[in-house]
Amino acid sequence: MRGPLLYRGKSKAIFAAEHPGEVLVEFLDDATAFNGKKHALIDGKGAINCAISAHLFALVGAAGVAHHLIRVEGPALMRCVAVRVVPVEVVVRNRVAGSLARRYGRTEGEPLAEPLVELFVKSDALDDPLINDDAAVALGFATANELAFMRGSALRVNELLRAFWAELGVELVDMKLEYGRADDGRLLLADEITPDGARLWETGTGRKLDKDVFRRDLGDLSETYRALSARVFPASR
Amino acid sequence: MRGPLLYRGKSKAIFAAEHPGEVLVEFLDDATAFNGKKHALIDGKGAINCAISAHLFALVGAAGVAHHLIRVEGPALMRCVAVRVVPVEVVVRNRVAGSLARRYGRTEGEPLAEPLVELFVKSDALDDPLINDDAAVALGFATANELAFMRGSALRVNELLRAFWAELGVELVDMKLEYGRADDGRLLLADEITPDGARLWETGTGRKLDKDVFRRDLGDLSETYRALSARVFPASR
Repeated sequence: MRGPLLYRGKSKAIFAAEHPGEVLVEFLDDATAFNGKKHALIDGKGAINCAISAHLFALVGAAGVAHHLIRVEGPALMRCVAVRVVPVEVVVRNRVAGSLARRYGRTEGEPLAEPLVELFVKSDALDDPLINDDAAVALGFATANELAFMRGSALRVNELLRAFWAELGVELVDMKLEYGRADDGRLLLADEITPDGARLWETGTGRKLDKDVFRRDLGDLSETYRALSARVFPASR
Repeated sequence: MRGPLLYRGKSKAIFAAEHPGEVLVEFLDDATAFNGKKHALIDGKGAINCAISAHLFALVGAAGVAHHLIRVEGPALMRCVAVRVVPVEVVVRNRVAGSLARRYGRTEGEPLAEPLVELFVKSDALDDPLINDDAAVALGFATANELAFMRGSALRVNELLRAFWAELGVELVDMKLEYGRADDGRLLLADEITPDGARLWETGTGRKLDKDVFRRDLGDLSETYRALSARVFPASR
Protein backbone atom coordinates (compact mmCIF):
# COMPACT_ATOMS: atom_id res chain seq x y z
CA MET A 1 0.00 0.00 0.00
CA ARG A 2 1.43 3.32 -1.12
CA GLY A 3 1.39 5.99 1.61
CA PRO A 4 1.76 9.77 1.22
CA LEU A 5 4.28 11.28 -1.19
CA LEU A 6 7.45 12.07 0.77
CA TYR A 7 9.61 13.51 -2.01
CA ARG A 8 9.25 14.18 -5.73
CA GLY A 9 12.63 14.19 -7.49
CA LYS A 10 13.38 14.85 -11.16
CA SER A 11 12.89 11.21 -12.18
CA LYS A 12 11.61 9.40 -9.09
CA ALA A 13 8.87 9.85 -6.49
CA ILE A 14 9.25 8.49 -2.97
CA PHE A 15 6.17 7.37 -1.03
CA ALA A 16 5.77 6.29 2.58
CA ALA A 17 5.23 2.54 3.11
CA GLU A 18 3.27 0.78 5.89
CA HIS A 19 6.49 0.41 7.88
CA PRO A 20 8.38 3.65 8.74
CA GLY A 21 11.74 1.97 8.02
CA GLU A 22 10.70 1.39 4.37
CA VAL A 23 9.71 3.54 1.39
CA LEU A 24 8.22 2.92 -2.05
CA VAL A 25 10.23 4.36 -4.93
CA GLU A 26 8.40 5.02 -8.20
CA PHE A 27 10.54 5.46 -11.31
CA LEU A 28 8.99 8.16 -13.53
CA ASP A 29 9.11 8.60 -17.29
CA ASP A 30 10.48 12.15 -16.84
CA ALA A 31 13.89 12.87 -18.33
CA THR A 32 15.69 16.08 -17.36
CA ALA A 33 19.09 17.54 -18.14
CA PHE A 34 21.13 20.65 -17.36
CA ASN A 35 19.79 20.85 -13.80
CA GLY A 36 16.17 20.56 -14.97
CA LYS A 37 16.36 23.18 -17.76
CA LYS A 38 15.60 20.48 -20.39
CA HIS A 39 12.66 18.15 -19.74
CA ALA A 40 10.70 15.47 -21.63
CA LEU A 41 8.54 12.42 -20.97
CA ILE A 42 10.20 9.26 -22.33
CA ASP A 43 7.75 6.42 -22.88
CA GLY A 44 8.75 3.34 -20.86
CA LYS A 45 11.76 4.92 -19.17
CA GLY A 46 10.45 4.49 -15.61
CA ALA A 47 9.80 0.79 -16.02
CA ILE A 48 13.12 0.15 -17.77
CA ASN A 49 15.13 2.08 -15.17
CA CYS A 50 13.35 0.27 -12.35
CA ALA A 51 14.08 -3.13 -13.88
CA ILE A 52 17.73 -2.35 -14.70
CA SER A 53 18.31 -0.77 -11.30
CA ALA A 54 16.79 -3.76 -9.47
CA HIS A 55 18.89 -6.14 -11.55
CA LEU A 56 22.11 -4.24 -10.77
CA PHE A 57 21.35 -3.79 -7.06
CA ALA A 58 20.82 -7.57 -6.85
CA LEU A 59 24.07 -8.16 -8.76
CA VAL A 60 26.24 -5.99 -6.50
CA GLY A 61 24.32 -7.20 -3.44
CA ALA A 62 25.24 -10.80 -4.30
CA ALA A 63 28.89 -9.66 -4.28
CA GLY A 64 28.55 -8.18 -0.80
CA VAL A 65 27.71 -4.53 -1.49
CA ALA A 66 25.05 -3.31 0.98
CA HIS A 67 22.19 -1.51 -0.83
CA HIS A 68 18.71 -0.19 -0.11
CA LEU A 69 16.56 -2.42 -2.39
CA ILE A 70 14.15 -4.74 -0.59
CA ARG A 71 12.07 -5.96 -3.58
CA VAL A 72 10.35 -4.83 -6.76
CA GLU A 73 6.60 -4.25 -6.25
CA GLY A 74 5.36 -3.17 -9.64
CA PRO A 75 6.56 -2.35 -13.17
CA ALA A 76 8.17 0.91 -12.02
CA LEU A 77 8.01 0.55 -8.26
CA MET A 78 10.50 -0.77 -5.74
CA ARG A 79 10.36 -1.13 -1.99
CA CYS A 80 13.54 0.17 -0.35
CA VAL A 81 15.02 0.73 3.09
CA ALA A 82 14.26 4.31 4.20
CA VAL A 83 17.56 6.22 4.37
CA ARG A 84 18.82 9.73 5.07
CA VAL A 85 20.75 10.43 1.86
CA VAL A 86 24.36 11.58 2.29
CA PRO A 87 24.38 14.87 0.30
CA VAL A 88 27.54 13.90 -1.58
CA GLU A 89 27.30 12.15 -4.95
CA VAL A 90 30.10 9.73 -5.80
CA VAL A 91 31.14 9.66 -9.45
CA VAL A 92 33.42 6.86 -10.65
CA ARG A 93 35.05 7.37 -14.03
CA ASN A 94 36.85 4.89 -16.29
CA ARG A 95 37.33 7.34 -19.17
CA VAL A 96 37.35 11.13 -19.45
CA ALA A 97 33.86 12.39 -20.39
CA GLY A 98 31.27 15.04 -19.58
CA SER A 99 32.12 17.58 -16.89
CA LEU A 100 35.61 16.11 -16.34
CA ALA A 101 36.50 16.78 -19.99
CA ARG A 102 35.01 20.30 -19.92
CA ARG A 103 36.46 21.29 -16.53
CA TYR A 104 40.06 20.37 -17.40
CA GLY A 105 40.03 20.92 -21.17
CA ARG A 106 40.45 17.23 -21.99
CA THR A 107 39.17 15.12 -24.85
CA GLU A 108 36.00 13.09 -24.36
CA GLY A 109 36.94 9.41 -24.41
CA GLU A 110 40.53 9.76 -23.20
CA PRO A 111 41.30 6.55 -21.25
CA LEU A 112 42.23 6.65 -17.54
CA ALA A 113 44.86 4.25 -16.19
CA GLU A 114 42.86 3.76 -12.97
CA PRO A 115 39.22 4.42 -12.08
CA LEU A 116 38.93 7.97 -10.76
CA VAL A 117 36.53 9.04 -7.99
CA GLU A 118 35.05 12.54 -7.78
CA LEU A 119 32.62 13.87 -5.16
CA PHE A 120 29.89 16.43 -5.84
CA VAL A 121 27.61 18.20 -3.39
CA LYS A 122 24.01 17.18 -4.10
CA SER A 123 22.45 20.62 -4.54
CA ASP A 124 20.34 21.90 -7.43
CA ALA A 125 20.67 25.46 -6.08
CA LEU A 126 24.49 25.25 -6.22
CA ASP A 127 24.51 23.23 -9.47
CA ASP A 128 26.08 20.15 -7.82
CA PRO A 129 29.59 21.57 -7.28
CA LEU A 130 32.72 19.40 -7.17
CA ILE A 131 34.13 19.03 -3.65
CA ASN A 132 37.22 17.37 -2.24
CA ASP A 133 37.28 15.10 0.83
CA ASP A 134 38.74 17.80 3.10
CA ALA A 135 36.02 20.31 2.28
CA ALA A 136 33.20 17.72 2.40
CA VAL A 137 34.23 16.85 5.95
CA ALA A 138 35.04 20.43 7.06
CA LEU A 139 31.67 21.74 5.83
CA GLY A 140 29.78 18.85 7.43
CA PHE A 141 28.45 17.16 4.26
CA ALA A 142 29.85 13.77 5.33
CA THR A 143 32.28 12.29 7.83
CA ALA A 144 35.71 11.03 6.81
CA ASN A 145 34.54 7.50 7.65
CA GLU A 146 31.49 7.83 5.41
CA LEU A 147 33.64 9.09 2.53
CA ALA A 148 36.12 6.23 2.93
CA PHE A 149 33.28 3.68 2.97
CA MET A 150 31.51 5.25 -0.02
CA ARG A 151 34.72 5.41 -2.02
CA GLY A 152 35.54 1.75 -1.36
CA SER A 153 31.99 0.63 -2.11
CA ALA A 154 31.81 2.75 -5.29
CA LEU A 155 35.08 1.33 -6.63
CA ARG A 156 33.82 -2.21 -5.94
CA VAL A 157 30.48 -1.47 -7.67
CA ASN A 158 32.42 -0.04 -10.61
CA GLU A 159 34.53 -3.20 -10.88
CA LEU A 160 31.42 -5.43 -10.81
CA LEU A 161 29.36 -3.35 -13.24
CA ARG A 162 32.21 -2.80 -15.69
CA ALA A 163 32.48 -6.58 -16.00
CA PHE A 164 28.68 -6.97 -16.24
CA TRP A 165 28.30 -4.41 -19.03
CA ALA A 166 31.41 -5.59 -20.87
CA GLU A 167 29.80 -9.05 -21.27
CA LEU A 168 26.88 -7.30 -22.99
CA GLY A 169 29.12 -5.38 -25.39
CA VAL A 170 28.81 -2.14 -23.43
CA GLU A 171 31.54 -0.05 -21.84
CA LEU A 172 30.85 1.59 -18.48
CA VAL A 173 32.50 5.01 -18.98
CA ASP A 174 31.34 6.61 -15.72
CA MET A 175 28.48 6.53 -13.24
CA LYS A 176 27.05 8.46 -10.32
CA LEU A 177 26.21 6.66 -7.07
CA GLU A 178 24.46 7.87 -3.94
CA TYR A 179 24.54 6.52 -0.42
CA GLY A 180 22.17 6.79 2.51
CA ARG A 181 22.18 6.09 6.21
CA ALA A 182 19.52 3.61 7.42
CA ASP A 183 17.90 3.85 10.87
CA ASP A 184 20.02 0.91 12.07
CA GLY A 185 23.18 2.92 11.21
CA ARG A 186 24.15 1.02 8.06
CA LEU A 187 25.43 3.08 5.13
CA LEU A 188 23.68 1.69 2.02
CA LEU A 189 24.11 2.18 -1.70
CA ALA A 190 20.84 3.98 -2.48
CA ASP A 191 19.06 5.96 -5.21
CA GLU A 192 19.32 4.11 -8.56
CA ILE A 193 21.82 2.48 -10.93
CA THR A 194 20.48 3.33 -14.37
CA PRO A 195 21.53 4.75 -17.76
CA ASP A 196 20.21 8.09 -16.42
CA GLY A 197 23.20 8.30 -14.08
CA ALA A 198 25.87 6.50 -16.08
CA ARG A 199 27.65 6.75 -19.40
CA LEU A 200 27.36 3.51 -21.37
CA TRP A 201 29.10 3.31 -24.73
CA GLU A 202 28.72 0.43 -27.18
CA THR A 203 32.01 -1.45 -27.22
CA GLY A 204 33.89 -0.82 -30.45
CA THR A 205 31.54 1.77 -31.98
CA GLY A 206 31.40 4.17 -28.98
CA ARG A 207 27.68 4.71 -29.67
CA LYS A 208 26.00 6.26 -26.64
CA LEU A 209 23.42 4.09 -24.89
CA ASP A 210 22.60 6.43 -22.00
CA LYS A 211 20.96 9.75 -21.13
CA ASP A 212 23.54 11.67 -23.22
CA VAL A 213 21.31 10.68 -26.18
CA PHE A 214 18.72 13.02 -24.62
CA ARG A 215 21.14 15.67 -23.27
CA ARG A 216 22.86 16.03 -26.64
CA ASP A 217 19.89 15.28 -28.97
CA LEU A 218 21.60 12.23 -30.48
CA GLY A 219 18.45 10.21 -31.17
CA ASP A 220 15.38 8.63 -29.59
CA LEU A 221 16.00 7.99 -25.89
CA SER A 222 13.01 5.65 -25.59
CA GLU A 223 14.37 3.40 -28.35
CA THR A 224 17.89 3.60 -26.89
CA TYR A 225 16.67 2.49 -23.46
CA ARG A 226 14.52 -0.30 -24.95
CA ALA A 227 17.55 -1.64 -26.84
CA LEU A 228 19.69 -1.44 -23.70
CA SER A 229 17.00 -3.22 -21.70
CA ALA A 230 16.92 -5.98 -24.34
CA ARG A 231 20.66 -6.51 -23.79
CA VAL A 232 20.17 -6.81 -20.02
CA PHE A 233 17.04 -9.01 -20.30
CA PRO A 234 17.45 -11.02 -23.53
CA ALA A 235 14.45 -13.24 -22.68
CA SER A 236 12.16 -10.16 -22.82
CA ARG A 237 12.91 -9.47 -26.49
CA MET B 1 72.79 41.06 -14.61
CA ARG B 2 69.26 40.59 -15.88
CA GLY B 3 69.03 38.28 -18.89
CA PRO B 4 66.17 37.89 -21.40
CA LEU B 5 62.55 37.89 -20.26
CA LEU B 6 61.45 34.27 -19.83
CA TYR B 7 57.86 34.79 -18.71
CA ARG B 8 55.56 37.73 -18.03
CA GLY B 9 52.83 36.85 -15.55
CA LYS B 10 49.99 39.04 -14.30
CA SER B 11 52.05 40.56 -11.46
CA LYS B 12 55.60 39.26 -11.93
CA ALA B 13 58.17 39.05 -14.73
CA ILE B 14 60.79 36.30 -14.77
CA PHE B 15 64.21 36.96 -16.34
CA ALA B 16 67.08 34.63 -17.06
CA ALA B 17 70.11 35.01 -14.76
CA GLU B 18 73.80 34.38 -15.54
CA HIS B 19 73.45 30.84 -14.23
CA PRO B 20 70.84 28.60 -15.92
CA GLY B 21 69.78 27.16 -12.53
CA GLU B 22 68.70 30.63 -11.35
CA VAL B 23 66.19 33.29 -12.41
CA LEU B 24 65.47 36.91 -11.49
CA VAL B 25 61.89 37.59 -10.42
CA GLU B 26 60.62 41.16 -10.72
CA PHE B 27 57.50 42.05 -8.73
CA LEU B 28 55.34 44.43 -10.80
CA ASP B 29 52.91 47.14 -9.70
CA ASP B 30 50.15 45.52 -11.78
CA ALA B 31 47.09 44.33 -9.91
CA THR B 32 44.61 42.08 -11.69
CA ALA B 33 41.44 40.29 -10.62
CA PHE B 34 38.77 38.03 -12.11
CA ASN B 35 41.28 36.21 -14.31
CA GLY B 36 42.73 39.48 -15.67
CA LYS B 37 39.39 41.16 -16.49
CA LYS B 38 40.11 43.92 -13.93
CA HIS B 39 43.52 45.61 -14.02
CA ALA B 40 45.26 48.60 -12.40
CA LEU B 41 48.73 49.84 -11.52
CA ILE B 42 49.17 50.14 -7.75
CA ASP B 43 52.01 52.45 -6.77
CA GLY B 44 54.59 50.64 -4.64
CA LYS B 45 52.91 47.22 -4.79
CA GLY B 46 55.83 45.46 -6.50
CA ALA B 47 58.36 46.61 -3.91
CA ILE B 48 56.07 45.82 -0.96
CA ASN B 49 55.18 42.35 -2.27
CA CYS B 50 58.86 41.61 -2.93
CA ALA B 51 59.85 42.65 0.61
CA ILE B 52 56.98 40.80 2.33
CA SER B 53 57.52 37.70 0.20
CA ALA B 54 61.26 37.65 0.95
CA HIS B 55 60.58 38.10 4.67
CA LEU B 56 58.09 35.22 4.72
CA PHE B 57 60.23 32.87 2.60
CA ALA B 58 63.09 33.48 5.08
CA LEU B 59 60.74 32.87 8.02
CA VAL B 60 59.42 29.52 6.73
CA GLY B 61 62.90 28.61 5.48
CA ALA B 62 64.30 29.05 9.01
CA ALA B 63 61.65 26.55 10.15
CA GLY B 64 62.78 23.99 7.56
CA VAL B 65 60.46 24.64 4.62
CA ALA B 66 62.40 24.37 1.35
CA HIS B 67 61.73 27.40 -0.91
CA HIS B 68 63.07 28.98 -4.10
CA LEU B 69 64.39 32.33 -2.77
CA ILE B 70 68.17 32.80 -3.01
CA ARG B 71 68.38 36.52 -2.16
CA VAL B 72 66.81 39.91 -2.79
CA GLU B 73 68.67 41.89 -5.48
CA GLY B 74 66.77 45.16 -5.71
CA PRO B 75 63.65 46.91 -4.38
CA ALA B 76 61.32 44.65 -6.37
CA LEU B 77 63.70 41.97 -7.56
CA MET B 78 64.66 38.60 -6.12
CA ARG B 79 67.02 35.91 -7.29
CA CYS B 80 65.42 32.48 -7.14
CA VAL B 81 66.16 28.87 -7.99
CA ALA B 82 64.84 28.12 -11.51
CA VAL B 83 61.97 25.65 -11.19
CA ARG B 84 59.41 23.92 -13.37
CA VAL B 85 56.19 24.99 -11.68
CA VAL B 86 53.77 22.19 -10.69
CA PRO B 87 50.54 23.32 -12.43
CA VAL B 88 48.49 22.78 -9.28
CA GLU B 89 47.90 25.64 -6.86
CA VAL B 90 47.55 24.74 -3.19
CA VAL B 91 45.03 26.81 -1.23
CA VAL B 92 45.01 26.53 2.56
CA ARG B 93 41.96 27.96 4.32
CA ASN B 94 41.40 28.76 8.00
CA ARG B 95 37.96 30.33 7.47
CA VAL B 96 35.33 30.11 4.74
CA ALA B 97 35.82 32.94 2.22
CA GLY B 98 35.89 33.73 -1.50
CA SER B 99 35.28 30.87 -3.92
CA LEU B 100 34.71 28.34 -1.08
CA ALA B 101 31.80 30.43 0.24
CA ARG B 102 30.33 30.94 -3.24
CA ARG B 103 30.78 27.35 -4.42
CA TYR B 104 29.04 25.76 -1.43
CA GLY B 105 26.62 28.56 -0.48
CA ARG B 106 28.36 29.29 2.82
CA THR B 107 28.82 32.52 4.75
CA GLU B 108 32.07 34.44 4.33
CA GLY B 109 33.93 34.28 7.62
CA GLU B 110 32.49 30.99 8.89
CA PRO B 111 35.27 29.40 11.00
CA LEU B 112 36.77 26.00 10.09
CA ALA B 113 37.69 23.54 12.85
CA GLU B 114 40.82 22.48 10.95
CA PRO B 115 42.78 24.10 8.10
CA LEU B 116 41.33 22.90 4.80
CA VAL B 117 43.44 22.27 1.68
CA GLU B 118 42.05 22.67 -1.86
CA LEU B 119 43.87 22.16 -5.14
CA PHE B 120 43.27 24.15 -8.32
CA VAL B 121 44.65 23.60 -11.81
CA LYS B 122 46.81 26.60 -12.76
CA SER B 123 45.14 27.56 -16.04
CA ASP B 124 43.82 30.96 -17.11
CA ALA B 125 42.08 29.33 -20.08
CA LEU B 126 40.14 26.98 -17.77
CA ASP B 127 39.67 29.64 -15.05
CA ASP B 128 41.76 27.69 -12.48
CA PRO B 129 39.28 24.85 -11.82
CA LEU B 130 39.13 22.98 -8.50
CA ILE B 131 40.56 19.46 -8.74
CA ASN B 132 40.81 16.57 -6.29
CA ASP B 133 43.94 14.49 -5.69
CA ASP B 134 42.68 11.53 -7.74
CA ALA B 135 42.02 13.63 -10.83
CA ALA B 136 45.24 15.67 -10.48
CA VAL B 137 47.22 12.43 -10.55
CA ALA B 138 45.08 10.68 -13.21
CA LEU B 139 45.30 13.65 -15.59
CA GLY B 140 49.07 14.00 -15.05
CA PHE B 141 49.10 17.43 -13.36
CA ALA B 142 51.17 16.10 -10.44
CA THR B 143 52.23 12.80 -8.88
CA ALA B 144 50.69 11.48 -5.67
CA ASN B 145 54.08 12.01 -3.98
CA GLU B 146 54.21 15.63 -5.10
CA LEU B 147 50.70 16.25 -3.80
CA ALA B 148 51.48 14.66 -0.43
CA PHE B 149 54.64 16.76 -0.10
CA MET B 150 52.90 19.97 -1.17
CA ARG B 151 50.02 19.37 1.21
CA GLY B 152 52.34 18.74 4.16
CA SER B 153 54.51 21.75 3.32
CA ALA B 154 51.48 24.02 2.80
CA LEU B 155 49.95 23.05 6.16
CA ARG B 156 53.30 23.75 7.87
CA VAL B 157 53.61 27.12 6.10
CA ASN B 158 50.05 27.91 7.18
CA GLU B 159 50.86 27.10 10.82
CA LEU B 160 53.96 29.31 10.74
CA LEU B 161 52.35 32.24 8.94
CA ARG B 162 49.15 32.17 11.00
CA ALA B 163 51.31 32.65 14.10
CA PHE B 164 53.41 35.34 12.38
CA TRP B 165 50.40 37.40 11.26
CA ALA B 166 48.55 36.89 14.56
CA GLU B 167 51.42 38.62 16.39
CA LEU B 168 50.86 41.63 14.10
CA GLY B 169 47.11 41.75 14.77
CA VAL B 170 46.25 40.14 11.46
CA GLU B 171 44.33 36.93 10.82
CA LEU B 172 45.46 34.68 7.97
CA VAL B 173 42.11 33.60 6.49
CA ASP B 174 43.48 31.73 3.47
CA MET B 175 46.37 31.72 1.03
CA LYS B 176 47.49 30.26 -2.25
CA LEU B 177 50.87 28.56 -2.56
CA GLU B 178 52.73 27.22 -5.57
CA TYR B 179 55.51 24.67 -5.80
CA GLY B 180 58.19 23.98 -8.39
CA ARG B 181 60.64 21.26 -9.21
CA ALA B 182 64.33 22.36 -9.28
CA ASP B 183 66.89 20.79 -11.60
CA ASP B 184 68.35 18.83 -8.67
CA GLY B 185 64.94 17.22 -8.12
CA ARG B 186 63.94 19.15 -4.99
CA LEU B 187 60.32 20.31 -4.77
CA LEU B 188 60.43 23.93 -3.55
CA LEU B 189 57.84 26.39 -2.31
CA ALA B 190 57.96 28.90 -5.19
CA ASP B 191 56.09 31.88 -6.64
CA GLU B 192 55.31 34.43 -3.89
CA ILE B 193 53.76 34.77 -0.43
CA THR B 194 52.02 38.14 -0.55
CA PRO B 195 48.68 39.83 0.20
CA ASP B 196 47.93 39.32 -3.54
CA GLY B 197 47.54 35.60 -2.90
CA ALA B 198 46.20 35.57 0.66
CA ARG B 199 43.27 36.88 2.66
CA LEU B 200 44.46 38.89 5.66
CA TRP B 201 41.82 40.31 7.99
CA GLU B 202 42.56 42.70 10.83
CA THR B 203 42.04 40.81 14.10
CA GLY B 204 38.87 41.95 15.83
CA THR B 205 37.59 44.33 13.14
CA GLY B 206 37.75 41.90 10.18
CA ARG B 207 38.94 44.79 7.99
CA LYS B 208 40.46 43.42 4.76
CA LEU B 209 44.21 44.05 4.35
CA ASP B 210 44.69 42.15 1.08
CA LYS B 211 43.86 42.18 -2.64
CA ASP B 212 40.12 41.86 -1.89
CA VAL B 213 40.30 45.65 -1.31
CA PHE B 214 40.99 45.91 -5.07
CA ARG B 215 38.74 43.01 -6.20
CA ARG B 216 35.75 44.39 -4.30
CA ASP B 217 36.52 48.16 -4.52
CA LEU B 218 36.77 48.51 -0.74
CA GLY B 219 39.37 51.29 -0.70
CA ASP B 220 42.87 52.29 -1.78
CA LEU B 221 45.01 49.18 -2.31
CA SER B 222 48.26 51.16 -2.30
CA GLU B 223 47.48 52.59 1.15
CA THR B 224 46.31 49.17 2.41
CA TYR B 225 49.57 47.52 1.31
CA ARG B 226 51.69 50.35 2.79
CA ALA B 227 49.92 49.96 6.14
CA LEU B 228 50.41 46.19 6.02
CA SER B 229 54.07 46.63 5.15
CA ALA B 230 54.46 48.97 8.14
CA ARG B 231 53.16 46.18 10.39
CA VAL B 232 55.69 43.71 8.97
CA PHE B 233 58.59 46.19 8.99
CA PRO B 234 57.93 48.57 11.91
CA ALA B 235 61.39 50.14 11.62
CA SER B 236 60.52 51.37 8.09
CA ARG B 237 57.62 53.53 9.29
